[in-house]
Amino acid sequence: MDKATLFENIKRKGSFLCVGLDTDIKKVPECLLQEDDPIFTFNKAIIDATADLCIAYKPNLAFYECMGVKGWIAFEKTVKYIKTFYPDQFIIADAKRGDIGNTSAMYARSFFEEMDIDALTVAPYMGEDSVTPFLNYPGKWVILLALTSNKGSHDFQLMENVQGEKLFERVLKKSQEWANDEQMMYVVGATQGRAFEDIRKIAPHHFLLVPGVGAQGGSLEEVCKYGMNDQCGLIVNSSRGIIYADKTINFAEGARNAAADLQIQMSNILKTL
Amino acid sequence: MDKATLFENIKRKGSFLCVGLDTDIKKVPECLLQEDDPIFTFNKAIIDATADLCIAYKPNLAFYECMGVKGWIAFEKTVKYIKTFYPDQFIIADAKRGDIGNTSAMYARSFFEEMDIDALTVAPYMGEDSVTPFLNYPGKWVILLALTSNKGSHDFQLMENVQGEKLFERVLKKSQEWANDEQMMYVVGATQGRAFEDIRKIAPHHFLLVPGVGAQGGSLEEVCKYGMNDQCGLIVNSSRGIIYADKTINFAEGARNAAADLQIQMSNILKTL
Repeated sequence: MDKATLFENIKRKGSFLCVGLDTDIKKVPECLLQEDDPIFTFNKAIIDATADLCIAYKPNLAFYECMGVKGWIAFEKTVKYIKTFYPDQFIIADAKRGDIGNTSAMYARSFFEEMDIDALTVAPYMGEDSVTPFLNYPGKWVILLALTSNKGSHDFQLMENVQGEKLFERVLKKSQEWANDEQMMYVVGATQGRAFEDIRKIAPHHFLLVPGVGAQGGSLEEVCKYGMNDQCGLIVNSSRGIIYADKTINFAEGARNAAADLQIQMSNILKTL
Repeated sequence: MDKATLFENIKRKGSFLCVGLDTDIKKVPECLLQEDDPIFTFNKAIIDATADLCIAYKPNLAFYECMGVKGWIAFEKTVKYIKTFYPDQFIIADAKRGDIGNTSAMYARSFFEEMDIDALTVAPYMGEDSVTPFLNYPGKWVILLALTSNKGSHDFQLMENVQGEKLFERVLKKSQEWANDEQMMYVVGATQGRAFEDIRKIAPHHFLLVPGVGAQGGSLEEVCKYGMNDQCGLIVNSSRGIIYADKTINFAEGARNAAADLQIQMSNILKTL
């Protein structure tokens, strides 16, 4: 999916919401556990309940891998289901991969060729040749970790060099030598507040994938105030706050309500663009 | 496996070789392609041919994930095969994971609980709370990326702060606040030469996992000269140089010969300890 189409979808739906499918078998409502594939059944219900309110889905690979083969099957079925019934959705595999070139090339083959996923989150620590193999697929996106939402983001990402440039700023600058805003986005945590201003100075036109609204405590209003650009430029993710909003048999309705709350706010914010 | 046992195995076998099972379906000998599970069949033959010459196996997850469900089955079968027939082998899942706490906890459950793997490679970019969930398993190891073997390692890992401390040095120091040398190792590429001296000043007692000998051009002699400590302190990995040493039906024999070449050199080096 290209950048213009993504922005079209955002305007049409009045939403820049991404629903994070961090589906944990230990948190799936009990009534689903007798199903053949409870993870997929849960995801399917969540997707059907939220697809008109969001523009992206982001399954986090960790939650599928921890189930072994069964989890991998549920992941593939989920991706196929979205692609078949909701082809306008932008699918992000949240995998935070990044390895030497030949290994990154294998990951690229897996996610972009075999599964035809739109975007993959990538960790920058290993530098250029760990990222560029993902850029050989026109229309596919690398979403590079820049400034993450967690407490540990302070440990290394804020380290400053002699020019006063922080590591995450160096990542933003250096990576723009590898790809432009038609193939690359950045992860910036919703908990980072004013840092969005600094980020917009370095990457004014890029889309930012913003986790951390909801369970992690980030504010949608603040993110938009400091992070939005004239083409929206934000994909805001909520995972636990939506998919576990209701833990009973009514989980899908609960998820819809939680997603709708965010979508209404987003729709109002988009009107100011 | 604890550190003392690992060192015992190294002395007993005269080897600190790790065989990297980066098994690519496109490079497996043609004669195996009619098998039910060519990846596992290939791995099994490689393992049987090399187990007396090495002390560790390191399957790289990327090569299995790119095959989807089939690849995941091959990975699990490979791990089970090693654990059943060669229980003294140290098994490293080369996954380079690292995510927010609850996600890292899912990965830890997957690799350490479900699969009972000994060690996992982890990327440090997201800091403390992305690493510590892996440290809740006594006898299990985190192998943190420090200074990698690839060209892109220069992009961020060598960034210096005002105190003249490089990012990889900061990773080495900071992470020692989270765990000691009984639970943590570091990845240092064989191509880094004299940098091993600097690393040993900061982490004198830790084991280092050293990829990059062989296909990537690192020198075993140099690595040992600057990186070895009095308990060996090195696990040197070769992947492509061993498993694809011979691309015909005699691939297992070829792998054995390539592993034996390294093991003989290692055995001689260990005598000088």
